[in-house]
Amino acid sequence: MGKGEATKEAILDEAIMMATTVGLGGMTIGALATKAQLSKSGLYAHFQSKEDLQLQVLEHARIRFVAEVIAPALAAPRGEPRVRALFEAKLRWSSAPGGCIFIAASSELDDRPGLVRDRLARNQRDWLDTIAEVFRTGIAEGQFHADADPEQFAFDFDGVMLSFHHTKRLLDDQTAERRARRSLDALLAAARAG
Amino acid sequence: MGKGEATKEAILDEAIMMATTVGLGGMTIGALATKAQLSKSGLYAHFQSKEDLQLQVLEHARIRFVAEVIAPALAAPRGEPRVRALFEAKLRWSSAPGGCIFIAASSELDDRPGLVRDRLARNQRDWLDTIAEVFRTGIAEGQFHADADPEQFAFDFDGVMLSFHHTKRLLDDQTAERRARRSLDALLAAARAG
Repeated sequence: MGKGEATKEAILDEAIMMATTVGLGGMTIGALATKAQLSKSGLYAHFQSKEDLQLQVLEHARIRFVAEVIAPALAAPRGEPRVRALFEAKLRWSSAPGGCIFIAASSELDDRPGLVRDRLARNQRDWLDTIAEVFRTGIAEGQFHADADPEQFAFDFDGVMLSFHHTKRLLDDQTAERRARRSLDALLAAARAG
Repeated sequence: MGKGEATKEAILDEAIMMATTVGLGGMTIGALATKAQLSKSGLYAHFQSKEDLQLQVLEHARIRFVAEVIAPALAAPRGEPRVRALFEAKLRWSSAPGGCIFIAASSELDDRPGLVRDRLARNQRDWLDTIAEVFRTGIAEGQFHADADPEQFAFDFDGVMLSFHHTKRLLDDQTAERRARRSLDALLAAARAG
């Protein structure tokens, strides 16, 4: 990675942290320049506009999400172990300082049509598709009911993640992780071939 | 209700709508004055500060939530019918234009310590307690397992609601309601005394 690229990565990491606190819409190039200890004009060399900054932040977060959540899960054995690996990786992602930028941005942007919202919605569809795909490996391996509904499982799996995120972050409730694992256990028990 | 009170109610209804779109932090007394067709100084008579406005908006939303979601559910027969009534009332609440202000505010405020976040967290604890209490009536009536965990049920019930909110609002997915009902059916089936 060249020096320019490394600088940009560092700026985008800062921007993700900022976006989880003040929202994608609350980020400004000025505040980001201060945080990254760069000049405003230096930052404008990387981001043409606020919308461009928001899109690049989402894309950087997506690439990190694939590397930190999806890739490790896909390395686990097919079926239930892979579902559990995906779950644990997503728990870690959501437990990082600032929480999950995609969850925060969803509530912020769901009422604001535009390119940024479209990109976020596409990411969310990809995420739900990934959960369903991972679940399908369990059907193919004969671990889950042949007539189990992968999209329904994805809806429920994501609901557990959202409840975890709210319970942990808004309520500072230390039981959130244990509750989330119990929820996953129940979903898997229901899916298992009898 | 006196004229002054009716005016204030109307302002707070506008403010809830505004908060679901731009966030509690994005609301300004100026923009709200324009929306409500009142002078800025007229608005300052009702709200001492931006924080005071945010607190009053949350309190107004809480009172409406009790009237529109909790009260109708408590009128239903104890046990499963009451759980289902609570679920349907919350679905309606979250499906209204702008969605659920509490969900939107949770992501916005979870990183911002202060009175407004504290109030929101208290509301969320009350909401989870209400779900658990309603579930307990089903245990008392012998409809659910004696050893079912009401707090776990509340965690899962709220997860379904959050998944519904994201799926419907960010993805415009028309299957969200059907999926949410299937999730509730599964949670109730697991809770039912065998």
